[in-house]
Amino acid sequence: MTEAKKKDKTEGLQTPLQQVTYLLSKYKLVEGFVHLQDKADQTLKDSSVQKQNLAELQSLLDQLHPADIAHILEALPLENRLLIWGMVKAEHDGDVLLEASDAVRTTLITDMGNQELVAAIEHLDTDEIADLAPDLPKDVMDNVFQSLPITEREQLRSAMSYPEEAVGALMDFDVITIREDVRLEVVLRYLRRLDELPDHTDQLFVVDRNEKLKGVLLINRLLVSDPDTLVADVISEEMIRLHPDDVAQQAANAFERYDLVSASVVDAHGKLLGRVTVNSVIDFIREKAESEALNLAGLKEEEDLFAPVLKSVKNRWVWLAINLVTAFIASRVIGVFEDSIEKLVALAALMPIIAGIGGNSGNQTITMIVRALALEQINTRSAWKLIAKEIGVSAVNGLIWGTVVGLFTYAIYQSASLGLVMTMAMILNLLLAALLGVLIPLTLRKFGRDPALGSSVMITAVTDSGGFFIFLSLATIFLL
Amino acid sequence: MTEAKKKDKTEGLQTPLQQVTYLLSKYKLVEGFVHLQDKADQTLKDSSVQKQNLAELQSLLDQLHPADIAHILEALPLENRLLIWGMVKAEHDGDVLLEASDAVRTTLITDMGNQELVAAIEHLDTDEIADLAPDLPKDVMDNVFQSLPITEREQLRSAMSYPEEAVGALMDFDVITIREDVRLEVVLRYLRRLDELPDHTDQLFVVDRNEKLKGVLLINRLLVSDPDTLVADVISEEMIRLHPDDVAQQAANAFERYDLVSASVVDAHGKLLGRVTVNSVIDFIREKAESEALNLAGLKEEEDLFAPVLKSVKNRWVWLAINLVTAFIASRVIGVFEDSIEKLVALAALMPIIAGIGGNSGNQTITMIVRALALEQINTRSAWKLIAKEIGVSAVNGLIWGTVVGLFTYAIYQSASLGLVMTMAMILNLLLAALLGVLIPLTLRKFGRDPALGSSVMITAVTDSGGFFIFLSLATIFLL
Repeated sequence: MTEAKKKDKTEGLQTPLQQVTYLLSKYKLVEGFVHLQDKADQTLKDSSVQKQNLAELQSLLDQLHPADIAHILEALPLENRLLIWGMVKAEHDGDVLLEASDAVRTTLITDMGNQELVAAIEHLDTDEIADLAPDLPKDVMDNVFQSLPITEREQLRSAMSYPEEAVGALMDFDVITIREDVRLEVVLRYLRRLDELPDHTDQLFVVDRNEKLKGVLLINRLLVSDPDTLVADVISEEMIRLHPDDVAQQAANAFERYDLVSASVVDAHGKLLGRVTVNSVIDFIREKAESEALNLAGLKEEEDLFAPVLKSVKNRWVWLAINLVTAFIASRVIGVFEDSIEKLVALAALMPIIAGIGGNSGNQTITMIVRALALEQINTRSAWKLIAKEIGVSAVNGLIWGTVVGLFTYAIYQSASLGLVMTMAMILNLLLAALLGVLIPLTLRKFGRDPALGSSVMITAVTDSGGFFIFLSLATIFLL
Repeated sequence: MTEAKKKDKTEGLQTPLQQVTYLLSKYKLVEGFVHLQDKADQTLKDSSVQKQNLAELQSLLDQLHPADIAHILEALPLENRLLIWGMVKAEHDGDVLLEASDAVRTTLITDMGNQELVAAIEHLDTDEIADLAPDLPKDVMDNVFQSLPITEREQLRSAMSYPEEAVGALMDFDVITIREDVRLEVVLRYLRRLDELPDHTDQLFVVDRNEKLKGVLLINRLLVSDPDTLVADVISEEMIRLHPDDVAQQAANAFERYDLVSASVVDAHGKLLGRVTVNSVIDFIREKAESEALNLAGLKEEEDLFAPVLKSVKNRWVWLAINLVTAFIASRVIGVFEDSIEKLVALAALMPIIAGIGGNSGNQTITMIVRALALEQINTRSAWKLIAKEIGVSAVNGLIWGTVVGLFTYAIYQSASLGLVMTMAMILNLLLAALLGVLIPLTLRKFGRDPALGSSVMITAVTDSGGFFIFLSLATIFLL
């Protein structure tokens, strides 16, 4: 009972990876043993034990969902990854490539011949091929292109023409269209002639003879209505109609807000082009959240966990370099005050406190503002209110924490004036952090940049250099 | 044409907020004018102009989706927020409360009488009431509880019993169940007797007479199959069955991986309890990503953009206090070396460079590891490989950036030995950052903590104090 329950609980989630790792280690163990014996007994490798291990692994892989296989490949070091990849059924190759992360996908593609790639890819939907296209060799894409019927070529061309951040990039072409002058009975009979409906079909699209979208017939409505009803009588206005050039983030917001499963995509003349489904929206939201987290940490893009060292270095150097420049600037600010520090060396020990808390406080403000911008909650009118509020928060925090560091300083250095300088510097640096914590993302937005990108690095640069400058200036004026 | 297109493009996205803000400002303008005249002309306030402004606002609000109203309320300062909230139709109150963020919801609830709250809430689904419960006064919950039929009371009790991070908290009870020994024709007739199907019904649940789940009938399958077929012949095994105690994150992973719209929730005996739908999963993913971003920035929880200053101070103090402690420690580390700094004051200007780059590099490593842990890509076997890789990356980065800062130092201070100390310190601090960047999240995980929470603060503390210590020790040994 407990065993069964336990299995059920992680069913399809962690178990496949654990199973594969276990079978792999059994296989590798025997292989390693053979190596130890210096190939004395090659037969052992081909022994029935080893064959059985491989067969077990193969049958496990055959049962797995392509998404699970992709996940397993991502979690394996390169050598084992390619061993498993070689064992994946050819018919799953395309789907696994689709599900794998960009970094891991590249390692898989590098391992495949062009013929093999074409075979894996040509049976995918055109919107899926478009997703893979940037990672494929040009020869392969040319071949795939040639093999497609004309309408699909057109779809592929249009799918590839949209930037990653546009609704067009999320769109697929699996729409079922009907006319409004037929009865539901006819619609039901029409559907029965199909082998299956496209995934995520929660509505049929009602179009006129020019393929102009007139509305939708919800599947739920179709099921509860009298079959004698005309489509025109149960047609629904959709909550939203997307355009291929719309910003994908806005479409994602709409899916979240209105709990959509699918939404139509139309051109400027109202002609139906395709649809967006909730699964591509989830992938988009996930990727967006991840790339934000990566950028905040100073990683250019997603990294294969087992990427070679030099590849990782390449992925990380940009932000380290930017950080180095801001650190050099802060260092030169301190350099200006070397005379003061020489006279009162305690300044050197105290200055990182002012800079550090300022950075933390500035990052709090920036996170609030970036989030509010993403949710479209800020306009010019409210910007002033926000600056006033953040200044207020910083003033209160400055008084509280400024007093704490002032007392700390007094306790250690027995100097009331040094303590007061710390308090003043803390208050001023927190006010600077609040002001720029609001202004930096708003300014980036004004110039059409992503307000999240680099905000954190910039505010830290300001509160470091600014904090050092404020503190050392005050100290020079009042203490020396 | 362009006007129409433009309207279409942002339809339901940004426009309602802009429209409301515009109408509000028109209304406020007249009111402000009246104030200026010192109530000399009270009649103006009740004038037809002002009445018309209010009527326009009212009719706009009446047309809006509750999610849009919630969004507008979040974007308005408190005074205007409550003005609009008073104008929302009573029948929408419950849905708006559901859609609003926690912080804003509290301000709305505070503004309502208990009677009004009960009326707004009792018509919601039980799983929705459970979501609101933590924010409601006890009296209100008691009243609501009394007003529910017995089965719904049971549902509410069970929905409220699950922690926020469990599948039970995402579950709803809107399941349609059928038996396997009937023909599809019967199922279709049964559905037609309903007024509508629950949202996100992409499958019907096939149960035996003990409500034990036997499988599902996909709506897509129902539509394409011959009505004479038996349910038993087209029943599908589900991809996954969830349990109410499962970790919600794993369910979200499954929805993402298998592109699900809904999934069943069963108890330990296989009895059907309810279902999870993709819209609650999207909300969960969003909230999770947001709370991670907030925690990283040192905010305890989501904050009302227009919260009073003291409330914001309360939300932010914890991380500032933690940061202050680590800053004090770093300060004391420097304090130990005050003699060295007095002799060579350049050390004070250079030490923040070592600490800063170390922190940036450590955060890069931690982000990689936390992400891989969330995706279940790391086991004990691969942990060692990861440490080796990160050490490798840091060694290369240390050589590159260490050389750069060494040359920079030489250029400014004309001292080759000082430059060499910088290079060495940089290499060592980056190695420290790599080692702890892997170990900190793995250790947090081992002790059952969220590896993301506080990782970034800890690694920065280590690279600050560690960086100062390494650099100043090396300088003391080799230069003085």
